[in-house]
Amino acid sequence: MKLSLLFRGRRVYRTAVLLKNNYSVSAARNSTALLYRNHGEPSQVVQLESLVSPQMGPDSVLVKMLAAPINPSDLNMIQGTYAILPELPAVGGNEGVGEVVEVGVEVKTLKAGDRVIPRDAGTGTWRTAAVLKADDLVTLPKDIPVLSAATLGVNPCTAFRMLTDFEELKPGDTVIQNAANSGVGQAVVQIAAAKGIQTVNVVRDRPDLQQLSDRLTALGATHVVTEEKLRRPEMKELFKSCPRPKLALNGVGGKSATEMLRHLQNGGSMVTYGGMAKQPVTVPVSALIFKDVKIRGFWVTRWKRDNKHDEDALRSMLDELCVLIRAGKLTAPACTEVRLQDFRKALENAMKPYVSTKQVFVM
Amino acid sequence: MKLSLLFRGRRVYRTAVLLKNNYSVSAARNSTALLYRNHGEPSQVVQLESLVSPQMGPDSVLVKMLAAPINPSDLNMIQGTYAILPELPAVGGNEGVGEVVEVGVEVKTLKAGDRVIPRDAGTGTWRTAAVLKADDLVTLPKDIPVLSAATLGVNPCTAFRMLTDFEELKPGDTVIQNAANSGVGQAVVQIAAAKGIQTVNVVRDRPDLQQLSDRLTALGATHVVTEEKLRRPEMKELFKSCPRPKLALNGVGGKSATEMLRHLQNGGSMVTYGGMAKQPVTVPVSALIFKDVKIRGFWVTRWKRDNKHDEDALRSMLDELCVLIRAGKLTAPACTEVRLQDFRKALENAMKPYVSTKQVFVM
Repeated sequence: MKLSLLFRGRRVYRTAVLLKNNYSVSAARNSTALLYRNHGEPSQVVQLESLVSPQMGPDSVLVKMLAAPINPSDLNMIQGTYAILPELPAVGGNEGVGEVVEVGVEVKTLKAGDRVIPRDAGTGTWRTAAVLKADDLVTLPKDIPVLSAATLGVNPCTAFRMLTDFEELKPGDTVIQNAANSGVGQAVVQIAAAKGIQTVNVVRDRPDLQQLSDRLTALGATHVVTEEKLRRPEMKELFKSCPRPKLALNGVGGKSATEMLRHLQNGGSMVTYGGMAKQPVTVPVSALIFKDVKIRGFWVTRWKRDNKHDEDALRSMLDELCVLIRAGKLTAPACTEVRLQDFRKALENAMKPYVSTKQVFVM
Repeated sequence: MKLSLLFRGRRVYRTAVLLKNNYSVSAARNSTALLYRNHGEPSQVVQLESLVSPQMGPDSVLVKMLAAPINPSDLNMIQGTYAILPELPAVGGNEGVGEVVEVGVEVKTLKAGDRVIPRDAGTGTWRTAAVLKADDLVTLPKDIPVLSAATLGVNPCTAFRMLTDFEELKPGDTVIQNAANSGVGQAVVQIAAAKGIQTVNVVRDRPDLQQLSDRLTALGATHVVTEEKLRRPEMKELFKSCPRPKLALNGVGGKSATEMLRHLQNGGSMVTYGGMAKQPVTVPVSALIFKDVKIRGFWVTRWKRDNKHDEDALRSMLDELCVLIRAGKLTAPACTEVRLQDFRKALENAMKPYVSTKQVFVM
């Protein structure tokens, strides 16, 4: 079976394929990848396979993958429920960090040894190596820890943009968010804390609540409250110690979102980036008309595509995030490192509710 | 009972009171007004009463009221369910047109004979005359028909701002709206048509549907569809003849709003200004994240207050609307003229569903 044909589909997947623990370029005809040929339950449809790489072109870059996480959107893509889907078969994974092994003759922006992450979703990062277009990659400094680099492109970028693009937040202002323990949620806590912005962090009640609360507080969370507490009158007390939020970040939907809305300042914004509860966002008419709340959505993939030709926008965000990482103010989420061949267990773990660590493939 | 005490409450009502069919200034100690002393069913709590006017101050204006409509928000205010409520007792009505009879010694902006409308909600317009502050009034040209002037400040202003402030609309673009037969809805149809903007107008099914459809089409509606049709696949056909809407205007809420959202362009806005269905606006998470729809609200009273010190903003809007009125492109809604003493019947009629004419008190 010719893999260049298998990958003839969408642009984002046509550059698939690679080596297998052997980065001598001349021998670079094989790689190992987590591939799926049908949509379905990730742990059932994903297979570890050997791929034959396409030839290097003049604008190609051979990248040895170092680490790539399993994000919820990766799972939805495999399930076939995501907003964008690759042609099948496809390699799983949409973010991760790699090292440049070789560049095509026309590539000026990258050189062997550079650390790179994909510029956009759809790269298929769960593999040992890939031949990619230079334009589809962006560099990261080498002093950034591999796990931070591997998980920088989606969640911290989502958190950064949501804290930047919707409301003008000043030190002392408050942001409320649900799913505070998610990858985005933890990045929100840390980036907000670094900017002097207070956070009210809503989490689901759970057996290890105190431990979770302590961990978020250590990351910089101002307040941690359960969904149940969010509905209770004592929230009034909480808002005596900090101003009502200008911004609410919603990764859940349903009642959780409606409850956050109740606490929002007049004229504030609620930005939805996820829908874990699988329920819509319900907004009282009076909140729209009389409180002037603004209901928006954010999708980092759209942001990246909208800003594809604005090199500075992505670069300056990544630079700012790297400054926080170096200063110890933005840490990677708690990660469980797994090998590609242990993918089935990793995918099962990533599907479990209340799992607080992110599964990251380390190649 | 001293009425200056009765009206000691909120600023907007403290200038209450007036004459009774006698505009000789020296005798201006009495007026007739529709007053309510308790919140409740409008036709039960409103009473026709004689009021004693306060003295004219240096910044006062004595206004003989000419006409004042019954708007849904007036009824909600009397019922006690509106976002802002006057201290009781209060005179009903929030818009209307009057003629200046006398001005205080320090008033430079107005003179006897000027046509005026209230700058803000809360004036209490259902009365024969009122002593008001000059700053709370704005002039209209005398060649504007009285019924148009009396109904200009709320609905056409709401329609104008919603078509202006949320999306940049160009000729040929499409706006979708429900409650298309409401006061706001009819103004939207006409203002949009004057700007070359196409409208898809959603109405409830009813016995006289064809007649209503013909009337809206005569006003400039591009398409008129029922709520039921809005849900059916044939809407796809409709959007072959015009682009999908950039803007949806929602006066209903509930399912009607959600259905309109489905037809919105990616990146478009839905603006809610009313909630006739008494149900919240429900937004699929995917519409927010992947379609980037923006959910907003509009309240003309807030706009007027936010722009209180920007004389030009209100003036230029009113001027533009008056140009449309003179050109026959913006007509008053179908009105039923009633005398103040027939208020009970008028209030009952205004509460009826499917009533296509607006009740307007003519003094």
